Amino acid sequence: MRMIRLVLAYDGTDFHGWAKQRGVRTVEGLLQDSLGRLLRAVPQLSVAGRTDAGVHAEGQVVSFRAPDEVEPRRIQRALNGMLAPEVVIRSARRATDDFDARHSARARVYRYRIDTSAVPNPFTARYVWHRPGPLSMGAMRTAARHLFGEHDFASFCRTPQRGSTVRRLVRLSVSLRGDEVDVTAEANGFLHQMVRSLTGTLVAVGEGKIGPRSVPTILEARKRSAAGPVAPPHGLTLVRVRYA
Amino acid sequence: MRMIRLVLAYDGTDFHGWAKQRGVRTVEGLLQDSLGRLLRAVPQLSVAGRTDAGVHAEGQVVSFRAPDEVEPRRIQRALNGMLAPEVVIRSARRATDDFDARHSARARVYRYRIDTSAVPNPFTARYVWHRPGPLSMGAMRTAARHLFGEHDFASFCRTPQRGSTVRRLVRLSVSLRGDEVDVTAEANGFLHQMVRSLTGTLVAVGEGKIGPRSVPTILEARKRSAAGPVAPPHGLTLVRVRYA
Repeated sequence: MRMIRLVLAYDGTDFHGWAKQRGVRTVEGLLQDSLGRLLRAVPQLSVAGRTDAGVHAEGQVVSFRAPDEVEPRRIQRALNGMLAPEVVIRSARRATDDFDARHSARARVYRYRIDTSAVPNPFTARYVWHRPGPLSMGAMRTAARHLFGEHDFASFCRTPQRGSTVRRLVRLSVSLRGDEVDVTAEANGFLHQMVRSLTGTLVAVGEGKIGPRSVPTILEARKRSAAGPVAPPHGLTLVRVRYA
Repeated sequence: MRMIRLVLAYDGTDFHGWAKQRGVRTVEGLLQDSLGRLLRAVPQLSVAGRTDAGVHAEGQVVSFRAPDEVEPRRIQRALNGMLAPEVVIRSARRATDDFDARHSARARVYRYRIDTSAVPNPFTARYVWHRPGPLSMGAMRTAARHLFGEHDFASFCRTPQRGSTVRRLVRLSVSLRGDEVDVTAEANGFLHQMVRSLTGTLVAVGEGKIGPRSVPTILEARKRSAAGPVAPPHGLTLVRVRYA
């Protein structure tokens, strides 16, 4: 058996997230079923980012073991024939035996897209949160600087987390292109709904509902209710995963 | 009664085109029903481009008469509340009494998007034709120069047309951005499936299946079978309509 590594893109709209669950359509379930048909045995999948329902991926990474003779290029062609364009295998290659999509990942990069224009755009509405009205870039960037770095992010985690809620944000940037505001976050790991919670708070800051300097107080509170609302899932995309 | 002019964008994926037909979902049918509820009378709609099933619009223009007291901004807000984000009213304003979205239009601009990369992109697949493999820009541009201007376009019309099949293309450009090839066509009017037929022939030229210099022969043949295949509908978008 040899390790295979896939890079996937998917439109998360019609999936109940990555993780396999009985009775609902998930990306993991679909991919496992398809691989099971190709390999005649259902492989265990390791994934870099367990995206929630409605969240998209441009560069999700998955690894699994397959018989020695299985050609990655053949897997890619066959899976794309079955799953594209909703789920697309952007690349497939062999990896070293110790490669694990989840545990080998050094960083995950997520992007949250917000459309601030008066009317939504039918061509991006599935991938961008339409929240009309301007946002203060200055206030959002000040708040982002307070969130940058290593902190206990318990206030930005939806569910009680097993283990530490300390994470290290190596990037949290707010950019503006026309009427679109993009929040980009990069960290070794994220808590549950952390990017959507950070984005929701940054938007509340951009609206003037939360002062950018109250961010340290929100972090210190270590409870979800201290932060702003959680931004909806469909604006979020796992952009890429970095490995050593 | 006063004339109102709307600019619409829509994702044509789940519509059987613009024109109202019994038993199927059309943009005109949906818009008329919604306006009927707002105005308590179903207005006659005039439209700039009767898009086919699966074809999209960024700047479709519609006109209709409404009671004097009806505020265009209120119509816009109410329609967007009912129809967005699949159909979006980008603007609504009063027009002069002699304005007619169809007959007053001076030119229509369509764009056809082709993705030539090896694997499709889940985020644009609804709006872009995925046709993997490079296309010769030089050959396509030579062919486009032969199609530019006034010609009898009967070979690029799907169904027998009432009246003249002579049209004047004031623009037919082929551009490349990364792996995406865009064909942009502008004319006073187009025959049925003309942009898709032009695109299908240009792609056959870009693939080397039709020589760019055989375009004059295709035009002279004046029959559909002389041209290349018709490109699929979902790559096509009505971009804008020009008025005097």
